[in-house]
Amino acid sequence: MEFQFQVPTKIIVGRDCVKKNAALFASMGKRTAIVKSGSAGKNGALEDVVRTLEEQDISYHVCENVPPNPTPEDVASLLGYAPDFDFIVAVGGGSAMDAAKCVAVLAVNDIPAMDLYKRPYAHRPLPVVAIPTTCGTGSEVTAVSVLEVGDTKKSVSDPELFPAAALLDAEYLKTLPWEITADTALDALAHCVEGYLILDSLAAEMCAEQAFTYFASYKKSLIGRSFTEDELELMLYTSTLGGIVISMAGTSAVHTIGYPLTVHRNIPHGRACALTLGEYVAFSYDVKKKKIDKMCALLQVDGVEGFQEMIRRILPAFPSFSKEEIIRYTDISAADAARKKNTKPVSKEDILRIYSASLLG
Amino acid sequence: MEFQFQVPTKIIVGRDCVKKNAALFASMGKRTAIVKSGSAGKNGALEDVVRTLEEQDISYHVCENVPPNPTPEDVASLLGYAPDFDFIVAVGGGSAMDAAKCVAVLAVNDIPAMDLYKRPYAHRPLPVVAIPTTCGTGSEVTAVSVLEVGDTKKSVSDPELFPAAALLDAEYLKTLPWEITADTALDALAHCVEGYLILDSLAAEMCAEQAFTYFASYKKSLIGRSFTEDELELMLYTSTLGGIVISMAGTSAVHTIGYPLTVHRNIPHGRACALTLGEYVAFSYDVKKKKIDKMCALLQVDGVEGFQEMIRRILPAFPSFSKEEIIRYTDISAADAARKKNTKPVSKEDILRIYSASLLG
Repeated sequence: MEFQFQVPTKIIVGRDCVKKNAALFASMGKRTAIVKSGSAGKNGALEDVVRTLEEQDISYHVCENVPPNPTPEDVASLLGYAPDFDFIVAVGGGSAMDAAKCVAVLAVNDIPAMDLYKRPYAHRPLPVVAIPTTCGTGSEVTAVSVLEVGDTKKSVSDPELFPAAALLDAEYLKTLPWEITADTALDALAHCVEGYLILDSLAAEMCAEQAFTYFASYKKSLIGRSFTEDELELMLYTSTLGGIVISMAGTSAVHTIGYPLTVHRNIPHGRACALTLGEYVAFSYDVKKKKIDKMCALLQVDGVEGFQEMIRRILPAFPSFSKEEIIRYTDISAADAARKKNTKPVSKEDILRIYSASLLG
Repeated sequence: MEFQFQVPTKIIVGRDCVKKNAALFASMGKRTAIVKSGSAGKNGALEDVVRTLEEQDISYHVCENVPPNPTPEDVASLLGYAPDFDFIVAVGGGSAMDAAKCVAVLAVNDIPAMDLYKRPYAHRPLPVVAIPTTCGTGSEVTAVSVLEVGDTKKSVSDPELFPAAALLDAEYLKTLPWEITADTALDALAHCVEGYLILDSLAAEMCAEQAFTYFASYKKSLIGRSFTEDELELMLYTSTLGGIVISMAGTSAVHTIGYPLTVHRNIPHGRACALTLGEYVAFSYDVKKKKIDKMCALLQVDGVEGFQEMIRRILPAFPSFSKEEIIRYTDISAADAARKKNTKPVSKEDILRIYSASLLG
């Protein structure tokens, strides 16, 4: 066996963890910029952050809200080159946290937005404290920032982008619309399933299998659209486990072929991944039988069909697609999808087949 | 729920991982000191390290062998204040790795040996690359160094002591006498059991439960005193998981009451812990029933008695003790043991009872 295991981000889980870890903010400097989603002002997260920073005499600049699925230009316009900050606080879902990582680069590197893709950076990105307010992205523990570029999404990736700390308080998830909870929980599931299947690593398997066990415990609530506080806590932590899994394994073609659905149809990222995840698992069954069987057992579903059925029941909506669209998305994503680590080689025909079986009713 | 999770050390697992990760050594500097056990020269580890350093044009100083259970003075005499090194390489079991962490402090801090216990240090300790050659200590992923001081052992502990990297190659375990394999595997088990029982943390539980599953898969080989290469790999990784568990949870009274057995009777550390571990679990059963039942199920043993029986069968030897000795060890360790995090408060009478039930046949 051959694998690596590291969780560089200090993950802190618990009610009121922002306020209880004021010293953590103080240890990071005196001036910060807050990169946030629109909802951060409504769920209590921004208020907790601001109060904590003020108590610690840390000066802060609050950036404009990050738009969903930001582009490099969106990200660059949030703060710009501003080398007088010590650290960045990210508050929100994947878009906010991914944007914050880029702000952390651009704040100390006077480069055009698209040069985010040119590494190494002259100056080390500022440290980021990430406070997730959805339960899907896992971005709080990854070194990746996914931005919308042209027809699809592209990852900025650098080991220095691992957030220094992730503060997980499920309180901020209480005001989430159930669709977002479901979509992001499915994103976390996709991270675990994809990473589990494409990488042979005892460490990734441990985290993914644990996540499957947790998912099984709350899947009925996802289907029923109603969650207890304990379930939200577990969903949030499952999502972080998913982030740990993809930080080791990367994502598979599932993510790649989901991107055009988000870019062109505005389908939320987690939902876009979930739409084809079941077919990808079916496609992979001949080469990953043992793992898929174990995964289904842990998820307490009846084989691959049961897995697909579970996702269908959790999905908040099932958009309809035309054949032409699917051909177009295949053209956009097939080459990138084939370059990803996958359970087995994925041809353009495979992609078209996975899209068709998943999306054409 | 409230817990933290971080694995700061980059863990790299696999055959020939020292040679395959030459770039890692190169990234750490040009001058290193190697802190090693006596066996490092026999199991191939030192040879691999030296060859890799030479290929990377890294100059190295090889310290004298670390004695078993080193004192602060032993550690100080290994290198002394020598601020011209960039990093330390540790090769060996717990004694070598624990010594290396202190050498990393003393190399850049001109302080007396006993000032290892006075933190913070003026200068940040040098980074350590740890290469374990036994399967018990977990020191390769902890921020702790346990040294012999007077009648017992005392921990030097500082977040800056987490090794930068841990390289796990089970090849180096092949030449271990079976007694050391068994003793150290029991040490790893103790870390997992103690951490599992004293800390409520989903992250620690995940690692410990995974370790129990692995332990169950090779326990028969430990009893039979013969291991396959795959089993040695798994034992080595289980030991690292145990290190991750104690870096979150710390150790319990079991470790504390094991120390006098090592200091006064020269009983190997893992064996010393294992001797009382079963009784500690029995002592804890009323308050940790659910966890202990789950642990026993994962270890595939029949309840607490089955757990105790398993340890008895793995133990390489069962030394005999007098009542007087046990009273003395109780006097030495009870106060420290009571201060540890435990499953429930531990009185001096409890310690005497655990010692007696464990050691007086």
